[in-house]
Order: sequence, then structure tokens, then C-alpha cells
Amino acid sequence: MSAELTQDMLEELIIAVDNQEGDFVKNVLEDLHPEDITSILYELDTDQCIYVFNVLAEDVCSEILATLDEETRTEFVQKFAPEQLATWVDYMDSDDAADMLQPLSPRFREKTLAFVDTEHASHIADLLNYEEGCAGAIMEKELIKANMNWTVVQAIDEIRRQAENVEKFYSLYVVDDQNLLLGRVSLKKIILSSDQTLIRDIYDDDLVMVKTYYEDTEVAEIMQKYDLEAVPVVNARGELVGRITIDDIVDVITDKADLDRQLMSGITEDVEEDDSILLLTRARLPWLIIGMFGGLMGAQFIGLFEADLVILPAMAFFIPLITATGGNVGIQSSSIVLQSLASKSIILQDSWYNRFFKVLIVAILNGLVISGVVFGFSFYLEGNLKLSITVAVALFSVVLLASLLGTFTPLVLNYFNINPAVASGPFITTANDLLGLAVYFTTARMMY
Amino acid sequence: MSAELTQDMLEELIIAVDNQEGDFVKNVLEDLHPEDITSILYELDTDQCIYVFNVLAEDVCSEILATLDEETRTEFVQKFAPEQLATWVDYMDSDDAADMLQPLSPRFREKTLAFVDTEHASHIADLLNYEEGCAGAIMEKELIKANMNWTVVQAIDEIRRQAENVEKFYSLYVVDDQNLLLGRVSLKKIILSSDQTLIRDIYDDDLVMVKTYYEDTEVAEIMQKYDLEAVPVVNARGELVGRITIDDIVDVITDKADLDRQLMSGITEDVEEDDSILLLTRARLPWLIIGMFGGLMGAQFIGLFEADLVILPAMAFFIPLITATGGNVGIQSSSIVLQSLASKSIILQDSWYNRFFKVLIVAILNGLVISGVVFGFSFYLEGNLKLSITVAVALFSVVLLASLLGTFTPLVLNYFNINPAVASGPFITTANDLLGLAVYFTTARMMY
Repeated sequence: MSAELTQDMLEELIIAVDNQEGDFVKNVLEDLHPEDITSILYELDTDQCIYVFNVLAEDVCSEILATLDEETRTEFVQKFAPEQLATWVDYMDSDDAADMLQPLSPRFREKTLAFVDTEHASHIADLLNYEEGCAGAIMEKELIKANMNWTVVQAIDEIRRQAENVEKFYSLYVVDDQNLLLGRVSLKKIILSSDQTLIRDIYDDDLVMVKTYYEDTEVAEIMQKYDLEAVPVVNARGELVGRITIDDIVDVITDKADLDRQLMSGITEDVEEDDSILLLTRARLPWLIIGMFGGLMGAQFIGLFEADLVILPAMAFFIPLITATGGNVGIQSSSIVLQSLASKSIILQDSWYNRFFKVLIVAILNGLVISGVVFGFSFYLEGNLKLSITVAVALFSVVLLASLLGTFTPLVLNYFNINPAVASGPFITTANDLLGLAVYFTTARMMY
Repeated sequence: MSAELTQDMLEELIIAVDNQEGDFVKNVLEDLHPEDITSILYELDTDQCIYVFNVLAEDVCSEILATLDEETRTEFVQKFAPEQLATWVDYMDSDDAADMLQPLSPRFREKTLAFVDTEHASHIADLLNYEEGCAGAIMEKELIKANMNWTVVQAIDEIRRQAENVEKFYSLYVVDDQNLLLGRVSLKKIILSSDQTLIRDIYDDDLVMVKTYYEDTEVAEIMQKYDLEAVPVVNARGELVGRITIDDIVDVITDKADLDRQLMSGITEDVEEDDSILLLTRARLPWLIIGMFGGLMGAQFIGLFEADLVILPAMAFFIPLITATGGNVGIQSSSIVLQSLASKSIILQDSWYNRFFKVLIVAILNGLVISGVVFGFSFYLEGNLKLSITVAVALFSVVLLASLLGTFTPLVLNYFNINPAVASGPFITTANDLLGLAVYFTTARMMY
């Protein structure tokens, strides 16, 4: 396993690559998992990588290509001739091949597919037709199906025929003469049944399936809910067209979590720490600028109370307390809603009215504790009763309003099909800052 | 599938439960997936649920129990006698049974296990010994293994023997006479090999395995990296003791994402929207109180500059701008680090020096844009050159410092084995608020 690879070995390998010691490079690398070879390739420059690809076996290269990140891969494969690329595509699963070819120019793509085995190429071309983010685009065409009228022996022949193309499976999908999906029969059952048993007598028709147009997150939910390792995909007519395996779904789940976290953190593009400085800067500026305009509006707003500040400068002391508490409460509230939106059940949804009521009670409890403590402290620190009351009342109102804003913003966004995670980010912080200031200074005006 | 269940049907069902129409209830429910039955049970009260459990088949009950959330389940199963519970445990996978029994009192647990089939009970007792969060605690004992000296026919006999206990598998694990794990052989290969072939001649020794003491998140990373659907678990001596399937790992991944999001949002307990008001309040108060003390410290700090505020109250206008920008930059920075900590590769880690340099450049670029724009606007709005310079310089410094704080806090926390997601939450916001105020007022002092 990979843990064995040290910095020394890496340097040795790079020297061997530069000296074109093909056998040494091949021996060292082919002992490793393709995923680990990929990690190493990221340390090499393009020419060195090209050399490694020329040295390694074609099936290893195809596995490495499947694990490279899209941006690097798109750039890299164009260094090779379409004929060369096709030799690797031959070894790839149709879904991985489609992922790889998708970002290339149609011209380069077609040229490559022309050199690929006909049936495989038509599978890949088929997958390329589906829109990104739907079940059709993440499914693979490789699967083993059995006609309901076959015997167990015929099914085993089919397994033998497909053995090279389909790696992991423990069920055969059962179809009728029109290729309509009827159910599945487990490998276990096939092993344990006598040769002449008919598939129609042993298959299981209790089967969860998805349609090609389902969203990938929807497929993820279904597979998670029913603990499925693979799910068959049917088209609108109910014909079996592919299957989705759990490893692709794990990627969907982690991508979704990453995206949500980025939205919550106010980053607009899918960036990673090792991206270019320009990209990192560009991904962060938009939300910073929105926050900045919020801050400038806040400045304008406080400006309206300049005269009051001259009389009682202590009012300014509590500005950060008010805005920060509003921000914290808002983020907490939206986060809890996000969680329940993510794990939505069928009939369990609370009505908006119940939600409102519950949020209000929790906010009142939190608000009472916080503003009680702050009242005590601020009176002890400043000795100004009126100011302490102002701060406490404003804080209580801010907790209430920020709770409601934080709860209902994601619900409204979700209703309009916008990713509600946006609502946990700088947007709600900025809104809460302004809300807090408005409440604070309005309270002050009323008190004085 | 579940979409068919309407509110009307639910009401009809509840009436049938209350009238004790067992056959009707059984017919309606047993057509559904256990996961969907669980959704329905959440709509019933405890007595109604007990009635449903008495009506349904034992294997269905066991599947429902496996999908219930822990809190509800722990309370619910104690309504039954240990003998009754044991009939369901008999049908459960060892890992699900251990999860269910873990939170019960040792007395109730032992009583229940006494009624369970001996081998199954000893498997469950074994799993209960592992600490939560490690590979041993999430593995299941059910697996099919073959001795390397067996023939294919012997392996098929073993599959037949275990067929009832092990649902999903497409490999047999291969062990030697000492039960040391050597590799695996796929069901496909068994089907395609002749009866008298020796397992030792067809098995694949290139196998990823994990140890019982690995952390569950570590297992998740490994399974994700190598796209595994199941991974065998060995003890310190290398003996095969269990296996972990991807559905358990999907739960680990989503739990981790939920936890991180909660930490980022300043929620201390694992709460959901439908938890009690008291629990929701308690989960949110701690961070609110920390934020509040931060705010009070900020108030104290601004208080030091009371005299300056009297002379130039406009200084107060920009407090929210400074604190908000610091907060936003800090969260963005820590989020990007979190991402790269989560997807750590073996040799790809940048040195701290390189990180520092890159973070600095990005911060300088962002800082220049933001403070440039703010300088323009504030001069236009207030017409005070000195104040505009103060705000711009302070803002620039805050962006720089918040970037560094946001980048290195999660790294330091990670170094000390504290979940770095904490650093994206209210902690860093509070720290940045104070930092921003300090920078702002210090700059002002130096300018005036």
C-alpha cells in the first residue's frame, strides 16, 4: 500500500524517469495501486508524465486516467494522438471514458471514438448525450442482464461472455424480450440453483430502480435510504439502459458536502488550496465585496445617529456585540434547517406554522439568557441603566429576528430551487449585521 | 416504492391500527420497504408502534429496527421483553444488532443475548467490545471465507451454508489454516472455474484490508480512494475478523459532513429540527455565550477609545465593516484549508512556508481591491481623507491578519488532533472581531 512511498523513493523515481530507465520505472510503479501512481504523477512535469504513460501497461494507464482530476486530465490527454488515447479508452468503463471525453472538443472526441471498439464506442457516445448531473450521465453501460426465459446455464454463459467488461456485481438484472427491466437474481442464487432452473422461477421482482432523468443527488438519496450498492437505470419506457454503482454515488455525496461548505464559507468557485493564486483570489472576492457593501451601508446607517453618538459614545461600544450575535444566531438557525432539508422524509415535514412557533420559542429562550447576562455585565461595566436596558432589549430582538431570518431564508431559497446552503454564508451574515444595527439604534432612539 | 403513500392512506392505516385490524395493517405495510415503514412509524404513538411490531413478520421488524434512529430505538425496544427482542436480533446483521444493543443497560443486553442463537450472540458480544468510532465497531462478522486449500466445490458448499446470513457479497475472502487473510476470490471466478480447481490457484492476493483499530473516517478514506464496496478487517495478528460494507461507510461520510457543518455553524450537539425545544436551546447556547463574551470584550476595548469617539464619532461608522470583513476572510481561509485537510494526499502536502507565502499573496490581492474600493467610497461619503486612509489601512491589515489566522488555526487544531472544522465556526468569527477592532483603533491612534 501507498504508505511505503517516501520522499527518497520519489526522487529516485524522478531521476529514473529523466534517465529514461523504463524498466525501473515500470517495476516501481506497477507495484502500486493506480490511485497511488496518480498521487505521484502530480509531482512530475508534463513531459515526465508522458514518459511514464508510454512505459506503463495500457490497463494501468486507463485506471490512472480515471482517477486524475478533470482539469489536469483534459489538458494532459490532448498531448497524445487520438489513436493512443483510444487504446486506453478500450480499457475504461463507459462512464469513466465518457467523463474523460466530455470536456474535449467534439472533433478530438470523435477522432478518438473512431479507434475504439464499436460496441464500447456506441455506449460511450450514448452516455455523452445525457446532461451533466442526471442519472444518465453518471451511470455505466456495463452490466450483466439475463432474459427471464433463460436457464441458469445460459445465464452463466452470459456471465462468462461479459466477465472481462463487468468487474463488480452480485446480481444479474432480469429483463423480458423487450428489454423491460423486471427484477434481479443474485449470483448467490445462480450458484445455488441447478443448471436447468429457469431464471423466471428464481428472480426477485422487488427491485429499486431509477430513471435516466433523475438528479444525481436524488439517486444518492435513494441508494442511501435503501442501502444499495448498485441500482439499475431505466429509460422512460422502462428499458434497462445502465447501472449506477455506489462508488460514483460516494463522489456525488462528498462533492455535495464540499459545495455546501464552500457556499457556507462564501467561496464562489470550486477551488482547492493548490489552485493558482489568481483563481483563489477570484473565488473569494465576490462575497467579500458583497460583505463590503453591507459594511458601507452599515456605516451610512450608523451615520444617521452621529448626533446621538456624540452625546453617548458608549453606544458604539456594543455595536460588535449586536452584529456578532445576530450573525451567530442566523447561521445556527439556517444550519439546522439545512440539515432537515438534506434528510427530508416523505411525510414527516413540519408545517411552516409549527416551524415558526418552535423557532420562536427556542429564540426566546436563547435571547432571554444572552440578553440577561449582557444586561448584568454591561450595567456592571458602564453603570448606565438606560444603556444596559437598550443593549439588552436590542440583543433580545436581534436574536428573535435573526432566528426567523436564518430559518426562513433557506426554506424560501429551497422553494425557488436555489441551493439553500447559500443562506448560511456571508449573505445571511451581512443581512444580520444590518438588521442588528437597525434594531439597536431604533431601540436606542425609543429609549432616549 | 414509497411515493405511493399518501396522507389519506396514512390516516386509514392509523384507524386500522386503533381498531386492531391486524390483517389489513400487515397487508398494507408488508408491501412497503422497511425504510418506508419506519417513516410511517414516526407518525404513530408508542402503543400503536408496539401493535404494528406484534403484527409484522419478525424479519421485517428486524429491518425496521436497523433503520430507526438510535434515540427512538433505545427507548422503544425497552418496551419489549428480552425474549421478544431476541427474536428480532436473530434476523439482524451482527453490526446492526450491536448498534442496537450498545446503548441499552448491560443487564437488559445480557438478558437479550441469552435468548439469541449462540454463534450469533458471541459475534455480537465481540463487536460490543470495540470502542465507538473504530473499524471494529462498524464491521460486521457476517462474511464468507474459503480456505486456500479448498476446491471450488468446497467453496460453493460454504456459500450454500452461509447463504442465509450473508446478503451482499461478490468475493470470498481467502485464508490459510491459521485464519490469516491472504486475498480474495470473486464469485464470478468461482462460477467460471471448474469444480476441482483449487482456491489457491485462482485467488487474488492484491487486496486492500484495514485493521480493527483504524478510525472509521480512515476506513472511509481508504474505501473511497480505492473505490471499494467492501473491505475485510483483520486484527493485529492479521487474522480475518470481519468486513465493512460501503453502506456503513456512506453513513460515516454523511455523519462527518453533518458534524463539520454543525461545528462551522456553532452548534455543539447533534441536533435536528425535530428535537425538543430544550435540546435545541442547549445545543446553541454555548457558542452564543462565547460570542457574547467576545462582544463584551470588544465593548471594553472600544471603551478605551471613548475620548477619540467623542471627537470623531464617524470612526464608529466603520466598526461593522471592519469586523464583518475580518469574519468573512477568516471563514473563507479556514474553509479552503479544511478542504485540503479532508482530501489529504500522501506526498502532496505543501510546506507551511509555501502555504504562508501563497496565503499572503492572495490576501494582499483581496485586501488591495477591498480597501481600494472602501477608500473611494468612504472618502466620497464622509469627505474625510484621514479617516478614509485609516479605514483603508485598517481593512487591508485585517484582511491580511484574518487570512493568516483563518489558515493556520485549523492547521494547528489538526496538529493537536482537534476537529479543525471548529475553526470555521463562531470561534474564528469572535477572534476576528476582536482582531479587527484592535487593528482599526490602533491604526486610528497612529493616524491622529
